Amino acid sequence: MVSAAAERFPDGESDAADPEDIADRRLRRGARSRKAVTRHAVDIASAEGLYGLSFGRLADDLGISKAGIQTLFRTKEQLQLATVDEALTVFVDAVIRPAAPEPAGAARLRAVVERWLAYASEPLLPGGCFWSANLAEFDSRPGAVRDALAQQHRNWLAVLAAELRTAVASGEIAPLDPDLAAFQLAAVLTATNIALRLDDPDAVGRARRALDTLLAPPR
Amino acid sequence: MVSAAAERFPDGESDAADPEDIADRRLRRGARSRKAVTRHAVDIASAEGLYGLSFGRLADDLGISKAGIQTLFRTKEQLQLATVDEALTVFVDAVIRPAAPEPAGAARLRAVVERWLAYASEPLLPGGCFWSANLAEFDSRPGAVRDALAQQHRNWLAVLAAELRTAVASGEIAPLDPDLAAFQLAAVLTATNIALRLDDPDAVGRARRALDTLLAPPR
Repeated sequence: MVSAAAERFPDGESDAADPEDIADRRLRRGARSRKAVTRHAVDIASAEGLYGLSFGRLADDLGISKAGIQTLFRTKEQLQLATVDEALTVFVDAVIRPAAPEPAGAARLRAVVERWLAYASEPLLPGGCFWSANLAEFDSRPGAVRDALAQQHRNWLAVLAAELRTAVASGEIAPLDPDLAAFQLAAVLTATNIALRLDDPDAVGRARRALDTLLAPPR
Repeated sequence: MVSAAAERFPDGESDAADPEDIADRRLRRGARSRKAVTRHAVDIASAEGLYGLSFGRLADDLGISKAGIQTLFRTKEQLQLATVDEALTVFVDAVIRPAAPEPAGAARLRAVVERWLAYASEPLLPGGCFWSANLAEFDSRPGAVRDALAQQHRNWLAVLAAELRTAVASGEIAPLDPDLAAFQLAAVLTATNIALRLDDPDAVGRARRALDTLLAPPR
Protein backbone atom coordinates (compact mmCIF):
# COMPACT_ATOMS: atom_id res chain seq x y z
CA MET A 1 0.00 0.00 0.00
CA VAL A 2 2.79 2.40 0.88
CA SER A 3 4.61 2.16 -2.43
CA ALA A 4 1.31 2.26 -4.34
CA ALA A 5 0.42 5.55 -2.63
CA ALA A 6 3.92 6.94 -3.28
CA GLU A 7 3.72 6.04 -6.98
CA ARG A 8 0.31 7.52 -7.37
CA PHE A 9 1.42 10.88 -5.95
CA PRO A 10 5.00 11.41 -7.18
CA ASP A 11 6.81 14.34 -5.57
CA GLY A 12 9.85 14.45 -7.84
CA GLU A 13 10.21 16.98 -10.66
CA SER A 14 10.81 15.74 -14.17
CA ASP A 15 14.09 16.90 -15.75
CA ALA A 16 12.84 16.22 -19.27
CA ALA A 17 12.50 19.24 -21.61
CA ASP A 18 11.59 17.00 -24.55
CA PRO A 19 8.18 17.83 -26.15
CA GLU A 20 7.15 14.17 -25.88
CA ASP A 21 7.13 14.68 -22.12
CA ILE A 22 4.61 17.49 -22.09
CA ALA A 23 1.75 15.12 -21.46
CA ASP A 24 3.78 13.50 -18.71
CA ARG A 25 4.51 16.90 -17.11
CA ARG A 26 0.82 17.76 -17.26
CA LEU A 27 0.02 14.54 -15.49
CA ARG A 28 2.59 15.34 -12.84
CA ARG A 29 1.16 18.82 -12.37
CA GLY A 30 -2.28 17.25 -11.91
CA ALA A 31 -0.83 14.82 -9.39
CA ARG A 32 0.75 17.69 -7.42
CA SER A 33 -2.55 19.60 -7.32
CA ARG A 34 -4.25 16.44 -6.21
CA LYS A 35 -1.68 15.94 -3.49
CA ALA A 36 -2.04 19.54 -2.22
CA VAL A 37 -5.80 19.12 -2.02
CA THR A 38 -5.73 15.70 -0.40
CA ARG A 39 -3.09 16.79 2.15
CA HIS A 40 -5.40 19.59 3.29
CA ALA A 41 -8.34 17.18 3.21
CA VAL A 42 -6.44 14.89 5.61
CA ASP A 43 -6.10 17.82 8.04
CA ILE A 44 -9.82 18.57 7.87
CA ALA A 45 -10.83 14.92 8.15
CA SER A 46 -8.58 14.25 11.14
CA ALA A 47 -10.37 16.98 13.10
CA GLU A 48 -13.89 17.00 11.67
CA GLY A 49 -14.26 13.66 9.93
CA LEU A 50 -14.23 12.56 6.29
CA TYR A 51 -17.96 13.05 6.15
CA GLY A 52 -17.50 16.79 6.55
CA LEU A 53 -15.26 17.10 3.47
CA SER A 54 -16.72 18.99 0.53
CA PHE A 55 -15.43 20.40 -2.75
CA GLY A 56 -16.68 23.85 -1.74
CA ARG A 57 -14.91 23.84 1.63
CA LEU A 58 -11.63 22.73 0.06
CA ALA A 59 -11.92 25.31 -2.72
CA ASP A 60 -12.52 28.10 -0.17
CA ASP A 61 -9.68 27.00 2.11
CA LEU A 62 -7.15 26.59 -0.69
CA GLY A 63 -8.25 29.57 -2.83
CA ILE A 64 -8.84 27.48 -5.93
CA SER A 65 -11.96 26.90 -7.99
CA LYS A 66 -14.54 24.34 -6.94
CA ALA A 67 -14.77 23.21 -10.58
CA GLY A 68 -11.01 22.53 -10.61
CA ILE A 69 -11.30 20.32 -7.53
CA GLN A 70 -14.29 18.54 -9.00
CA THR A 71 -12.27 17.81 -12.16
CA LEU A 72 -9.54 16.25 -10.03
CA PHE A 73 -11.79 14.00 -7.93
CA ARG A 74 -15.20 13.79 -9.70
CA THR A 75 -17.17 12.45 -6.72
CA LYS A 76 -17.17 13.02 -2.99
CA GLU A 77 -16.41 9.33 -2.47
CA GLN A 78 -13.36 9.56 -4.75
CA LEU A 79 -12.22 12.58 -2.73
CA GLN A 80 -12.69 10.64 0.51
CA LEU A 81 -10.76 7.65 -0.86
CA ALA A 82 -7.89 9.85 -2.06
CA THR A 83 -7.84 11.45 1.40
CA VAL A 84 -7.68 8.05 3.10
CA ASP A 85 -4.79 7.09 0.81
CA GLU A 86 -2.91 10.33 1.53
CA ALA A 87 -3.44 9.87 5.28
CA LEU A 88 -1.66 6.54 5.00
CA THR A 89 1.31 8.23 3.30
CA VAL A 90 1.51 10.77 6.14
CA PHE A 91 1.27 7.98 8.72
CA VAL A 92 3.89 5.75 7.12
CA ASP A 93 6.35 8.66 6.85
CA ALA A 94 5.78 9.71 10.47
CA VAL A 95 5.40 6.39 12.28
CA ILE A 96 6.43 3.31 10.31
CA ARG A 97 9.44 4.34 8.22
CA PRO A 98 11.47 6.01 11.02
CA ALA A 99 11.18 2.86 13.16
CA ALA A 100 12.27 0.50 10.37
CA PRO A 101 16.05 0.70 11.14
CA GLU A 102 15.49 -0.67 14.67
CA PRO A 103 16.04 -4.39 15.21
CA ALA A 104 12.84 -6.40 14.59
CA GLY A 105 10.92 -7.30 17.74
CA ALA A 106 10.51 -5.34 20.98
CA ALA A 107 12.93 -2.54 19.99
CA ARG A 108 11.15 -1.77 16.72
CA LEU A 109 7.75 -2.04 18.38
CA ARG A 110 8.80 0.45 21.06
CA ALA A 111 10.06 2.78 18.32
CA VAL A 112 6.77 2.50 16.42
CA VAL A 113 4.80 3.27 19.59
CA GLU A 114 7.02 6.27 20.47
CA ARG A 115 6.58 7.63 16.93
CA TRP A 116 2.86 7.01 17.15
CA LEU A 117 2.66 8.90 20.46
CA ALA A 118 4.51 11.84 18.87
CA TYR A 119 2.21 11.70 15.81
CA ALA A 120 -0.86 11.81 18.05
CA SER A 121 0.55 14.27 20.64
CA GLU A 122 2.14 17.03 18.60
CA PRO A 123 -0.26 16.46 16.78
CA LEU A 124 0.92 15.99 13.24
CA LEU A 125 -2.73 16.27 12.15
CA PRO A 126 -5.07 18.83 13.77
CA GLY A 127 -7.45 16.19 15.11
CA GLY A 128 -4.78 13.73 16.21
CA CYS A 129 -5.04 10.21 14.83
CA PHE A 130 -6.79 10.10 11.46
CA TRP A 131 -8.16 6.56 11.93
CA SER A 132 -9.37 7.08 15.50
CA ALA A 133 -11.73 9.77 14.24
CA ASN A 134 -12.72 8.21 10.94
CA LEU A 135 -13.09 4.51 11.71
CA ALA A 136 -15.53 5.43 14.47
CA GLU A 137 -17.38 7.71 12.06
CA PHE A 138 -17.52 5.28 9.12
CA ASP A 139 -17.94 1.94 10.87
CA SER A 140 -21.74 2.19 10.52
CA ARG A 141 -21.57 3.43 6.90
CA PRO A 142 -20.88 0.49 4.53
CA GLY A 143 -19.05 1.33 1.32
CA ALA A 144 -15.69 1.81 -0.33
CA VAL A 145 -14.47 4.37 2.22
CA ARG A 146 -15.24 2.13 5.17
CA ASP A 147 -13.57 -0.80 3.38
CA ALA A 148 -10.41 1.24 2.73
CA LEU A 149 -10.22 2.42 6.36
CA ALA A 150 -10.82 -1.12 7.64
CA GLN A 151 -8.11 -2.56 5.37
CA GLN A 152 -5.61 0.04 6.58
CA HIS A 153 -6.52 -0.79 10.17
CA ARG A 154 -5.92 -4.52 9.51
CA ASN A 155 -2.53 -3.65 8.01
CA TRP A 156 -1.68 -1.65 11.14
CA LEU A 157 -2.60 -4.61 13.36
CA ALA A 158 -0.43 -6.86 11.16
CA VAL A 159 2.55 -4.50 11.57
CA LEU A 160 2.22 -4.61 15.37
CA ALA A 161 1.61 -8.39 15.44
CA ALA A 162 4.71 -9.06 13.31
CA GLU A 163 7.01 -7.33 15.82
CA LEU A 164 5.31 -9.06 18.74
CA ARG A 165 5.68 -12.44 17.02
CA THR A 166 9.41 -11.79 16.52
CA ALA A 167 9.80 -10.71 20.14
CA VAL A 168 8.13 -13.90 21.38
CA ALA A 169 10.01 -16.18 18.97
CA SER A 170 13.37 -14.76 20.00
CA GLY A 171 12.56 -15.10 23.71
CA GLU A 172 12.75 -11.33 24.29
CA ILE A 173 9.34 -11.24 25.95
CA ALA A 174 7.07 -13.65 27.80
CA PRO A 175 4.84 -15.80 25.56
CA LEU A 176 1.62 -14.16 24.35
CA ASP A 177 -0.81 -14.34 21.44
CA PRO A 178 0.69 -11.78 18.98
CA ASP A 179 -2.61 -11.04 17.23
CA LEU A 180 -4.47 -10.54 20.50
CA ALA A 181 -1.68 -8.37 21.92
CA ALA A 182 -1.59 -6.31 18.71
CA PHE A 183 -5.33 -5.72 19.03
CA GLN A 184 -4.89 -4.71 22.69
CA LEU A 185 -2.04 -2.35 21.83
CA ALA A 186 -3.90 -0.70 18.94
CA ALA A 187 -6.92 -0.30 21.21
CA VAL A 188 -4.78 1.39 23.87
CA LEU A 189 -3.31 3.78 21.29
CA THR A 190 -6.76 4.73 19.97
CA ALA A 191 -7.91 5.39 23.53
CA THR A 192 -4.73 7.39 24.12
CA ASN A 193 -5.56 9.56 21.12
CA ILE A 194 -8.86 10.47 22.77
CA ALA A 195 -7.14 11.05 26.13
CA LEU A 196 -4.68 13.42 24.39
CA ARG A 197 -7.53 15.34 22.76
CA LEU A 198 -9.13 15.62 26.23
CA ASP A 199 -5.83 17.02 27.61
CA ASP A 200 -5.27 14.12 29.98
CA PRO A 201 -1.75 14.79 31.33
CA ASP A 202 -1.10 11.07 31.95
CA ALA A 203 -2.08 9.95 28.44
CA VAL A 204 1.43 9.28 27.11
CA GLY A 205 2.79 7.80 30.34
CA ARG A 206 -0.16 5.44 30.63
CA ALA A 207 0.25 4.27 27.03
CA ARG A 208 3.91 3.45 27.76
CA ARG A 209 2.96 1.53 30.92
CA ALA A 210 0.34 -0.40 28.94
CA LEU A 211 3.00 -1.32 26.36
CA ASP A 212 5.27 -2.48 29.21
CA THR A 213 2.57 -4.91 30.41
CA LEU A 214 2.61 -6.53 26.93
CA LEU A 215 6.42 -6.60 26.67
CA ALA A 216 7.03 -8.26 30.04
CA PRO A 217 10.30 -10.24 30.04
CA PRO A 218 10.09 -14.04 30.19
CA ARG A 219 10.29 -15.49 33.71
CA MET B 1 -25.49 10.52 37.84
CA VAL B 2 -27.76 7.55 37.39
CA SER B 3 -30.32 8.60 39.95
CA ALA B 4 -30.14 12.21 38.80
CA ALA B 5 -31.00 11.10 35.27
CA ALA B 6 -33.83 8.91 36.54
CA GLU B 7 -35.29 11.75 38.62
CA ARG B 8 -35.11 14.18 35.76
CA PHE B 9 -37.08 11.89 33.44
CA PRO B 10 -39.70 10.17 35.62
CA ASP B 11 -41.57 7.32 33.95
CA GLY B 12 -44.31 6.83 36.53
CA GLU B 13 -47.86 8.10 36.04
CA SER B 14 -49.38 10.37 38.67
CA ASP B 15 -52.52 9.04 40.35
CA ALA B 16 -53.58 12.49 41.56
CA ALA B 17 -56.87 13.93 40.23
CA ASP B 18 -56.66 16.96 42.52
CA PRO B 19 -56.65 20.35 40.65
CA GLU B 20 -53.54 21.40 42.59
CA ASP B 21 -51.71 18.68 40.70
CA ILE B 22 -52.50 19.97 37.22
CA ALA B 23 -49.25 21.89 37.03
CA ASP B 24 -47.42 18.81 38.26
CA ARG B 25 -49.10 16.63 35.62
CA ARG B 26 -48.20 19.15 32.94
CA LEU B 27 -44.59 18.99 34.05
CA ARG B 28 -44.70 15.23 33.91
CA ARG B 29 -46.18 15.30 30.42
CA GLY B 30 -43.36 17.62 29.34
CA ALA B 31 -40.84 15.27 30.89
CA ARG B 32 -42.35 12.32 29.00
CA SER B 33 -42.19 14.20 25.67
CA ARG B 34 -38.62 15.13 26.48
CA LYS B 35 -37.77 11.52 27.19
CA ALA B 36 -39.38 10.29 23.94
CA VAL B 37 -37.41 12.84 21.96
CA THR B 38 -34.10 12.21 23.73
CA ARG B 39 -34.48 8.42 23.44
CA HIS B 40 -34.81 8.76 19.67
CA ALA B 41 -31.94 11.27 19.68
CA VAL B 42 -29.74 8.65 21.39
CA ASP B 43 -30.49 6.22 18.52
CA ILE B 44 -29.56 8.81 15.89
CA ALA B 45 -26.44 9.92 17.74
CA SER B 46 -25.17 6.38 18.29
CA ALA B 47 -25.18 5.81 14.51
CA GLU B 48 -24.54 9.25 13.05
CA GLY B 49 -23.07 11.28 15.88
CA LEU B 50 -24.44 13.96 18.19
CA TYR B 51 -23.30 16.59 15.75
CA GLY B 52 -25.87 15.37 13.22
CA LEU B 53 -28.81 15.92 15.59
CA SER B 54 -31.23 18.66 14.63
CA PHE B 55 -34.65 19.83 15.75
CA GLY B 56 -35.95 19.43 12.19
CA ARG B 57 -34.73 15.84 11.85
CA LEU B 58 -36.24 14.83 15.19
CA ALA B 59 -39.54 16.56 14.36
CA ASP B 60 -39.73 14.73 11.01
CA ASP B 61 -38.84 11.34 12.48
CA LEU B 62 -41.25 11.62 15.41
CA GLY B 63 -44.09 13.38 13.58
CA ILE B 64 -44.21 16.30 15.98
CA SER B 65 -43.69 20.01 15.43
CA LYS B 66 -40.21 21.48 15.29
CA ALA B 67 -41.46 24.37 17.44
CA GLY B 68 -42.57 21.89 20.10
CA ILE B 69 -39.13 20.32 20.24
CA GLN B 70 -37.49 23.73 20.34
CA THR B 71 -39.66 24.65 23.32
CA LEU B 72 -38.49 21.52 25.15
CA PHE B 73 -34.75 21.97 24.53
CA ARG B 74 -34.21 25.60 23.43
CA THR B 75 -30.71 25.14 21.98
CA LYS B 76 -28.94 22.41 20.02
CA GLU B 77 -26.39 22.14 22.82
CA GLN B 78 -29.16 21.56 25.38
CA LEU B 79 -30.57 18.87 23.10
CA GLN B 80 -27.12 17.24 22.83
CA LEU B 81 -26.65 17.37 26.62
CA ALA B 82 -30.08 15.83 27.26
CA THR B 83 -29.20 13.12 24.73
CA VAL B 84 -25.90 12.38 26.48
CA ASP B 85 -27.77 12.13 29.77
CA GLU B 86 -30.41 9.78 28.32
CA ALA B 87 -27.69 7.60 26.76
CA LEU B 88 -26.28 7.10 30.24
CA THR B 89 -29.68 5.94 31.50
CA VAL B 90 -29.88 3.40 28.66
CA PHE B 91 -26.33 2.23 29.39
CA VAL B 92 -26.80 1.87 33.14
CA ASP B 93 -30.02 -0.13 32.65
CA ALA B 94 -28.38 -2.43 30.09
CA VAL B 95 -24.87 -2.88 31.44
CA ILE B 96 -24.30 -1.72 35.00
CA ARG B 97 -27.50 -2.53 36.91
CA PRO B 98 -27.88 -6.18 35.74
CA ALA B 99 -24.31 -6.94 36.89
CA ALA B 100 -24.75 -5.38 40.33
CA PRO B 101 -26.03 -8.58 42.07
CA GLU B 102 -22.78 -10.44 41.23
CA PRO B 103 -20.09 -10.57 43.93
CA ALA B 104 -17.73 -7.58 43.73
CA GLY B 105 -14.46 -8.28 41.92
CA ALA B 106 -13.77 -10.56 38.96
CA ALA B 107 -17.30 -12.02 38.82
CA ARG B 108 -19.00 -8.64 38.63
CA LEU B 109 -16.42 -7.37 36.15
CA ARG B 110 -17.04 -10.39 33.90
CA ALA B 111 -20.79 -9.76 34.15
CA VAL B 112 -20.32 -6.08 33.23
CA VAL B 113 -18.18 -7.04 30.22
CA GLU B 114 -20.70 -9.68 29.05
CA ARG B 115 -23.52 -7.15 29.33
CA TRP B 116 -21.40 -4.60 27.52
CA LEU B 117 -20.71 -7.07 24.69
CA ALA B 118 -24.45 -7.75 24.37
CA TYR B 119 -25.19 -3.99 24.39
CA ALA B 120 -22.67 -3.42 21.59
CA SER B 121 -23.46 -6.62 19.62
CA GLU B 122 -27.24 -6.74 19.45
CA PRO B 123 -26.90 -3.71 19.23
CA LEU B 124 -29.13 -2.00 21.72
CA LEU B 125 -28.44 1.26 19.86
CA PRO B 126 -28.29 1.35 16.05
CA GLY B 127 -24.67 2.51 15.94
CA GLY B 128 -23.44 0.26 18.76
CA CYS B 129 -21.67 1.99 21.65
CA PHE B 130 -22.84 5.58 22.10
CA TRP B 131 -19.53 6.80 23.56
CA SER B 132 -17.29 5.08 21.03
CA ALA B 133 -18.93 7.15 18.30
CA ASN B 134 -19.35 10.40 20.18
CA LEU B 135 -16.16 10.73 22.22
CA ALA B 136 -14.16 10.35 19.00
CA GLU B 137 -16.40 12.94 17.34
CA PHE B 138 -16.33 15.48 20.17
CA ASP B 139 -12.81 15.12 21.52
CA SER B 140 -11.61 17.97 19.27
CA ARG B 141 -14.66 20.17 20.02
CA PRO B 142 -14.28 21.83 23.46
CA GLY B 143 -17.50 22.67 25.30
CA ALA B 144 -20.20 21.38 27.60
CA VAL B 145 -21.01 18.32 25.47
CA ARG B 146 -17.40 17.18 25.35
CA ASP B 147 -17.11 17.75 29.11
CA ALA B 148 -20.22 15.67 29.80
CA LEU B 149 -19.02 12.81 27.58
CA ALA B 150 -15.55 12.91 29.16
CA GLN B 151 -17.00 12.85 32.69
CA GLN B 152 -19.16 9.83 31.83
CA HIS B 153 -16.12 8.10 30.38
CA ARG B 154 -14.14 8.76 33.59
CA ASN B 155 -17.03 7.29 35.60
CA TRP B 156 -16.97 4.18 33.40
CA LEU B 157 -13.23 3.77 34.01
CA ALA B 158 -13.86 4.17 37.74
CA VAL B 159 -16.50 1.40 37.68
CA LEU B 160 -14.08 -1.00 35.98
CA ALA B 161 -11.16 -0.01 38.22
CA ALA B 162 -13.22 -0.57 41.39
CA GLU B 163 -13.92 -4.21 40.47
CA LEU B 164 -10.29 -4.77 39.47
CA ARG B 165 -9.12 -3.28 42.77
CA THR B 166 -11.41 -5.62 44.69
CA ALA B 167 -10.22 -8.62 42.67
CA VAL B 168 -6.57 -7.79 43.39
CA ALA B 169 -7.18 -7.05 47.09
CA SER B 170 -8.99 -10.36 47.63
CA GLY B 171 -6.23 -12.31 45.84
CA GLU B 172 -8.60 -13.48 43.09
CA ILE B 173 -6.28 -12.26 40.33
CA ALA B 174 -2.57 -11.57 39.92
CA PRO B 175 -1.43 -8.10 41.07
CA LEU B 176 -1.94 -5.28 38.55
CA ASP B 177 -2.50 -1.51 38.47
CA PRO B 178 -6.32 -1.28 38.58
CA ASP B 179 -6.49 2.13 36.88
CA LEU B 180 -4.15 1.06 34.09
CA ALA B 181 -6.00 -2.22 33.60
CA ALA B 182 -9.35 -0.38 33.56
CA PHE B 183 -8.01 1.90 30.84
CA GLN B 184 -6.78 -1.12 28.86
CA LEU B 185 -10.11 -2.90 29.23
CA ALA B 186 -12.17 0.15 28.21
CA ALA B 187 -9.86 0.61 25.21
CA VAL B 188 -10.38 -3.02 24.17
CA LEU B 189 -14.16 -2.65 24.44
CA THR B 190 -14.16 0.52 22.32
CA ALA B 191 -12.05 -1.27 19.70
CA THR B 192 -14.43 -4.22 19.92
CA ASN B 193 -17.35 -1.92 19.15
CA ILE B 194 -15.63 -0.91 15.91
CA ALA B 195 -14.81 -4.56 15.10
CA LEU B 196 -18.48 -5.44 15.61
CA ARG B 197 -19.60 -2.65 13.27
CA LEU B 198 -17.10 -3.99 10.70
CA ASP B 199 -18.66 -7.48 11.07
CA ASP B 200 -15.47 -9.04 12.45
CA PRO B 201 -16.64 -12.58 13.46
CA ASP B 202 -13.96 -12.83 16.19
CA ALA B 203 -14.82 -9.51 17.86
CA VAL B 204 -16.58 -10.93 20.92
CA GLY B 205 -14.23 -13.88 21.39
CA ARG B 206 -11.19 -11.64 21.21
CA ALA B 207 -12.65 -9.23 23.77
CA ARG B 208 -13.18 -12.15 26.17
CA ARG B 209 -9.60 -13.38 25.65
CA ALA B 210 -8.32 -9.84 26.29
CA LEU B 211 -10.30 -9.76 29.55
CA ASP B 212 -8.77 -13.12 30.49
CA THR B 213 -5.27 -11.69 30.11
CA LEU B 214 -6.17 -9.04 32.72
CA LEU B 215 -7.87 -11.48 35.08
CA ALA B 216 -5.00 -13.99 35.21
CA PRO B 217 -5.01 -15.94 38.49
CA PRO B 218 -2.18 -15.27 40.98
CA ARG B 219 0.81 -17.64 40.66
